[in-house]
Amino acid sequence: MCGVKIVTIGGGSSYTPELVEGFIKRYDKLPVRELWLVDIPEGKEKLEIVGELAKRMVEAAGLPMKIFMTLDRREALKDADFVTTQLRVGLLEARIKDERIPLSYGFLGQETNGAGGLFKGLRTIPVILDICKDMDELCKDAWLINFTNPVGMVMEAINRYSNRKKAVGLCNLPIGMHKAIAEILERPMEEVNVTFAGLNHMVFVTGVYMDGSNVMDQVLDKWGNQTVKNITGIEWDSRFLKALGVIPCSYHRYYFMGKEYLEEALENYEHNGTRAEKVKKIEDELFELYRDANLKIKPKQLEQRGGAFYSDAACNLICSIYNDTRDIQVVNTVNHGVISELEYEEVGELGCVITKNGPMPITSGKLPKAVHGLIQQIKSFEVAACEAAVSGDYDKALLAMMINPMVGSQRYAIEMLDELMEAHKEYLPQFCR
Amino acid sequence: MCGVKIVTIGGGSSYTPELVEGFIKRYDKLPVRELWLVDIPEGKEKLEIVGELAKRMVEAAGLPMKIFMTLDRREALKDADFVTTQLRVGLLEARIKDERIPLSYGFLGQETNGAGGLFKGLRTIPVILDICKDMDELCKDAWLINFTNPVGMVMEAINRYSNRKKAVGLCNLPIGMHKAIAEILERPMEEVNVTFAGLNHMVFVTGVYMDGSNVMDQVLDKWGNQTVKNITGIEWDSRFLKALGVIPCSYHRYYFMGKEYLEEALENYEHNGTRAEKVKKIEDELFELYRDANLKIKPKQLEQRGGAFYSDAACNLICSIYNDTRDIQVVNTVNHGVISELEYEEVGELGCVITKNGPMPITSGKLPKAVHGLIQQIKSFEVAACEAAVSGDYDKALLAMMINPMVGSQRYAIEMLDELMEAHKEYLPQFCR
Amino acid sequence: MCGVKIVTIGGGSSYTPELVEGFIKRYDKLPVRELWLVDIPEGKEKLEIVGELAKRMVEAAGLPMKIFMTLDRREALKDADFVTTQLRVGLLEARIKDERIPLSYGFLGQETNGAGGLFKGLRTIPVILDICKDMDELCKDAWLINFTNPVGMVMEAINRYSNRKKAVGLCNLPIGMHKAIAEILERPMEEVNVTFAGLNHMVFVTGVYMDGSNVMDQVLDKWGNQTVKNITGIEWDSRFLKALGVIPCSYHRYYFMGKEYLEEALENYEHNGTRAEKVKKIEDELFELYRDANLKIKPKQLEQRGGAFYSDAACNLICSIYNDTRDIQVVNTVNHGVISELEYEEVGELGCVITKNGPMPITSGKLPKAVHGLIQQIKSFEVAACEAAVSGDYDKALLAMMINPMVGSQRYAIEMLDELMEAHKEYLPQFCR
Amino acid sequence: MCGVKIVTIGGGSSYTPELVEGFIKRYDKLPVRELWLVDIPEGKEKLEIVGELAKRMVEAAGLPMKIFMTLDRREALKDADFVTTQLRVGLLEARIKDERIPLSYGFLGQETNGAGGLFKGLRTIPVILDICKDMDELCKDAWLINFTNPVGMVMEAINRYSNRKKAVGLCNLPIGMHKAIAEILERPMEEVNVTFAGLNHMVFVTGVYMDGSNVMDQVLDKWGNQTVKNITGIEWDSRFLKALGVIPCSYHRYYFMGKEYLEEALENYEHNGTRAEKVKKIEDELFELYRDANLKIKPKQLEQRGGAFYSDAACNLICSIYNDTRDIQVVNTVNHGVISELEYEEVGELGCVITKNGPMPITSGKLPKAVHGLIQQIKSFEVAACEAAVSGDYDKALLAMMINPMVGSQRYAIEMLDELMEAHKEYLPQFCR
Repeated sequence: MCGVKIVTIGGGSSYTPELVEGFIKRYDKLPVRELWLVDIPEGKEKLEIVGELAKRMVEAAGLPMKIFMTLDRREALKDADFVTTQLRVGLLEARIKDERIPLSYGFLGQETNGAGGLFKGLRTIPVILDICKDMDELCKDAWLINFTNPVGMVMEAINRYSNRKKAVGLCNLPIGMHKAIAEILERPMEEVNVTFAGLNHMVFVTGVYMDGSNVMDQVLDKWGNQTVKNITGIEWDSRFLKALGVIPCSYHRYYFMGKEYLEEALENYEHNGTRAEKVKKIEDELFELYRDANLKIKPKQLEQRGGAFYSDAACNLICSIYNDTRDIQVVNTVNHGVISELEYEEVGELGCVITKNGPMPITSGKLPKAVHGLIQQIKSFEVAACEAAVSGDYDKALLAMMINPMVGSQRYAIEMLDELMEAHKEYLPQFCR
Repeated sequence: MCGVKIVTIGGGSSYTPELVEGFIKRYDKLPVRELWLVDIPEGKEKLEIVGELAKRMVEAAGLPMKIFMTLDRREALKDADFVTTQLRVGLLEARIKDERIPLSYGFLGQETNGAGGLFKGLRTIPVILDICKDMDELCKDAWLINFTNPVGMVMEAINRYSNRKKAVGLCNLPIGMHKAIAEILERPMEEVNVTFAGLNHMVFVTGVYMDGSNVMDQVLDKWGNQTVKNITGIEWDSRFLKALGVIPCSYHRYYFMGKEYLEEALENYEHNGTRAEKVKKIEDELFELYRDANLKIKPKQLEQRGGAFYSDAACNLICSIYNDTRDIQVVNTVNHGVISELEYEEVGELGCVITKNGPMPITSGKLPKAVHGLIQQIKSFEVAACEAAVSGDYDKALLAMMINPMVGSQRYAIEMLDELMEAHKEYLPQFCR
Repeated sequence: MCGVKIVTIGGGSSYTPELVEGFIKRYDKLPVRELWLVDIPEGKEKLEIVGELAKRMVEAAGLPMKIFMTLDRREALKDADFVTTQLRVGLLEARIKDERIPLSYGFLGQETNGAGGLFKGLRTIPVILDICKDMDELCKDAWLINFTNPVGMVMEAINRYSNRKKAVGLCNLPIGMHKAIAEILERPMEEVNVTFAGLNHMVFVTGVYMDGSNVMDQVLDKWGNQTVKNITGIEWDSRFLKALGVIPCSYHRYYFMGKEYLEEALENYEHNGTRAEKVKKIEDELFELYRDANLKIKPKQLEQRGGAFYSDAACNLICSIYNDTRDIQVVNTVNHGVISELEYEEVGELGCVITKNGPMPITSGKLPKAVHGLIQQIKSFEVAACEAAVSGDYDKALLAMMINPMVGSQRYAIEMLDELMEAHKEYLPQFCR
Repeated sequence: MCGVKIVTIGGGSSYTPELVEGFIKRYDKLPVRELWLVDIPEGKEKLEIVGELAKRMVEAAGLPMKIFMTLDRREALKDADFVTTQLRVGLLEARIKDERIPLSYGFLGQETNGAGGLFKGLRTIPVILDICKDMDELCKDAWLINFTNPVGMVMEAINRYSNRKKAVGLCNLPIGMHKAIAEILERPMEEVNVTFAGLNHMVFVTGVYMDGSNVMDQVLDKWGNQTVKNITGIEWDSRFLKALGVIPCSYHRYYFMGKEYLEEALENYEHNGTRAEKVKKIEDELFELYRDANLKIKPKQLEQRGGAFYSDAACNLICSIYNDTRDIQVVNTVNHGVISELEYEEVGELGCVITKNGPMPITSGKLPKAVHGLIQQIKSFEVAACEAAVSGDYDKALLAMMINPMVGSQRYAIEMLDELMEAHKEYLPQFCR
């Protein structure tokens, strides 16, 4: 059959119009025949709102792209070419708990790499591994493009506990950093060659090349308060950045400025609401907009949601795989020796040549010794979390909590673990056996 | 010339009677002909008190061991066979600052691996490297046995920035853990084979063997509140220990129970005085005792000082090198592939066969993935600290402070760095250039 | 100044018309303003013949490309953008000795990785390192594109003993293998994605991808007698290839079929002349053709010379660096973790993204364990040869000879070494000190 | 039950009196209660001759050691403490084929690391793996001490394909090298500390220490024609040894002087008989002696057999495990990072502290780069041979043959493989499926 079949699991997400816009823009290179939006019963209403908006967008664009909405994942997966996952087990309510419970003990929850991230992982990994099994059966040659956080942990789980090789993890952070660097250098992005290495939400820029020279020093000088929507921008000290020698991402602030961000988060926890609560509010507003039958394009307000460039990142990746373009994109995949701080078969976030056969990592030089420990610590946290998620072993979950660099307390590790376990028990059947 | 010449730099330390007792006990195997106690002018009074006590101890033992006291280090080093270093640049006053200044910002100073440890390293490393140079000139075949903290950082500095291969770092922690394990198993130490791997004050027991079987699980069950004099014993959670799979040392509490120890330290900071202040009090009392011309043995009270087994550790090591006994002891030396988480030429704390040619590391199995990050983080902290100490580069010192796992704040890293730099400037000439 | 200045050292080579043709074909993308052909006094006659032909070719093409011929290397290098090296120290006469002397003892000389190759390296490396020094002074931002054999050894020498980072080694073998594989699969080259890893003349195809699948097995089945002009094609046994799991290059026959090739070479040695002697005959005929003032294009006969695709390989590489095209080409460069059998900073032959800043290696998966030894052996041979070439240390040269897998005899290693040393002494001044 | 039960599989070997003598000498430290000599029906006669001699030896020594002779391996293994294996599948007749068939094609058979060694491995590995299974069932805490060649390959097979961790491989070569070095230095062995690293029959001395200094250079100067009984001593060139920087073992001559040894072996093949044939003659004479009812001690002539120090090596090892002596011996065991050229879990031959829990490898420094290739090549040969032995896959066996550094011919690899496969088919049931 001609054209591409795409399945989006968690299709009722507020991000979906981003994706739809991306597919519309690239229709000549990536002829999407069918787009299946899949969700769970609890998400049915949102799915319909988003799905109808998608239909209006496609119609307005005058393209023969069919939009399907379904609660039957297996029906959707049949013969898919690409499957994207943007699901959220337990919805935003669960994220609110991931953030508020740790804060109540005086710790950052941080929905990707902190105590909250651990529980997001414990809830999400079994679902994603189920999707992998379904795909092996129903569309074995399809590519899984995972946006679901914690992307690093989820990809490591797929890598270790599924048979799926055709899976790539994606985050909009590197593309944002690339854009910011290009702006600092006052050049179009394509004239600035930026190399990345690290883990998801723990990625570093290791080189910036322009006109055949390394211009890292120029950028380090002017880096400072670059950040993403989710994180406020306390400025980096340029003496530190120079001694470090690589450019940190916004999430590194949670480690190198943990105390500052904890203070801010505690302030929000008590007075303004956590990030999750803000996101919930934005989402509610977005869905109000989406309902409007006159809306036929992605609304501007979506940009505040924090997922800028997701559409570009995702659609570019799918487009490059489909067309075997062999251009370079930053994705989460097995590093194969490129990040020498990781094991050969472990997942990293790094620049890759994108081929029809998937991403092939490109070397980006050694990370500075000063960050090896952090990289290892997060990777071992991810691995312990995967083991806990798959086995349902309480002690493994405790180990993950204890080695998380944002925790550092045995007493509170246990207390937070127990309260989060109880709070999320509905989504953690593996721990109830 | 017959017999052994030993030089102890920082000879006026309250620990010296431990050493003297050790040499007396082992005289038949290790015939010490001359023991030179060296100190700096500020330590002259203590040197004389300790030196006189040492003379009385030797005399009481009826041995022909000569005790020399001198402020002239180079005179003492001439033709030495072993040089031990137990110096403290800036005396206990400096340690008090190392602990109190970080606490005033809400951080653990921790005189070995924390912010305080960084400054102890910055003050100490140049002095130790000078001693190495003197040794190369005056007693090139002698062995340097370093007890000076931070032992790991100091040994890494010797390894990277001196020509001295004949240098070993020593800590009493492993021997204490071995003793505690043997007690748990109700066996004499020599019947329990314990393997160690890690860094100084960051060492793990990786295996416990008795009667030809690995009995690690029995020990993990009963480990719990084993600790050393310097650290109070909050109990380890046995579920965590089992998931970890190795036995942590007392100092690991600063990482895995950092919040708990910070609370305790802040309490002491405000009410009871920090560890350094307590130590100062104990030391004053000890020197009162040492002055007593009737005292001819090591006084029992020395044990409270926290250096239990130092004498055994040090004298055993010297004795084994001298006699080429090829027994196993735990020391700080270049790991040569035995700790696969470190670079081949980096210093670790690990079990070694002790030969006349120095320590030869023994394998002890892989450390669990869960601690790779911590090991790397402390090693890269040590390396950054060494670079800062040798270069006098402020940015490198800031880097070291920023990557220290007990800090985690850019704002306070800078503030603490600046205040500590000012407080210790007398001992940090390399940063004033 | 507008346009590109290219300098070709060894410009009087019979290969030059290949290069000139390549530059002409790509003039729109790579506007060569000046092409400087440099040679030594002994090569003056050939330089003029080739240079005149080049001029006629450019004129016939109607392009404003200036051809310069000079014996003054430093004059030529001034402000160059690219420097290509295709020199042959001692000319073909030296190659004849490299081949005949080992054969007289019953060993393959093999001008790249055998005993002959060792001496080609010993003669060539000092000259190349001199060129690097000149470039650092006269055209420090220029790229050195080295075709001179033994490419692997020469690149390792540049990597270890020069300051030049902007240097790439090039061989036509991978492009030939890619073409052969595409033919087997009956597809255009660009539709077949082929990954390479190894060393120069010791490279393996590690993956063949078509339409998103690995089709290695199809190729292994039909590989067999693919080879290059320099080597006759004894067929590979397909059972061996399948067990090996990667595709060997033609030169691997010297190791896996050493006895067969030795027999053939001995036969040629006694009756038909060695490869060097044949090449000399071809070259003489080529220069006869080149002299013809009516010849204005590259003559067909050049293809027999063995350098098929050199022009494509070289001009494509220069063109991609110049235009920052970021396409994938196979070159010799520092592997940076991509070939895990090599040290991080050692040179390998591998697929790279070609940028204005040079090649960035792409991962290609692990080489099979069965070839690790061979790779290591050749790399250590290269390294020992480099050390000998730079130091002029006889023992190091003997070591290189002894560890060469084509030798395997102490007695003959010494005898060959001595006879080759004597035969080439004019070009080995470093060994006469 | 008091005392030790030892089982010797291949008990009818001519080496057995060595072992018995060793047990008698060490009876006070290693009280052998029962020694079970096990053999197969074809070896029954020899078993009885040797067994009776053993009984006479024990009786003459006045010790309560019981000797049992049996063809029932499982009966013997029941509750054993140590099991030694010195078996030879196919007896010396098979070894004669292993040597003669390759020689008939012009290749060294070399019963450990050559084409012959491959077949010895293919015959032996399944038998040893069976013994491991029996031990798991009948005496799971017993130690397997394997002398059976090719020791490296057999140990790698146990490591990869059995559950047995309590297994050590042993060779008399290192102890012989240690003795020879001590003689060169004119000192008792215990005063000379020698470090070893490598593989079985591919081991190097990496350091020689005396009186606290490295005296390697003195030894390299005088090494030269040290060898073992099995190999004649062509002298090493001292310039090569100095450039190499480590001391090779006798078997290295097969690689570095392969041509010389091939010539010698071909000469013997045609005129004097191969080593196997000589050994057979010696063995026949030995058994003549053993039959003599008056013989009550190990006869002097046994020393010509080539197994000098086997008794010392084996009995010392058993004695040290039994008594947890923690002295250093050179054995074949998993290297655990000590030989950085091997994978962490691969078997090497290296110095170990011998404990009740088995050998713990000691670091011995990096092997020189010049030998990495050879080590890798032999290790990958061993691994391919193990895979072939376990799977019965012809292609894997061909791969092993092809990558063996003594072969280097595709045509003859196939021909030799086929002829050897046919010649030994009785002992290679796994290839007949």
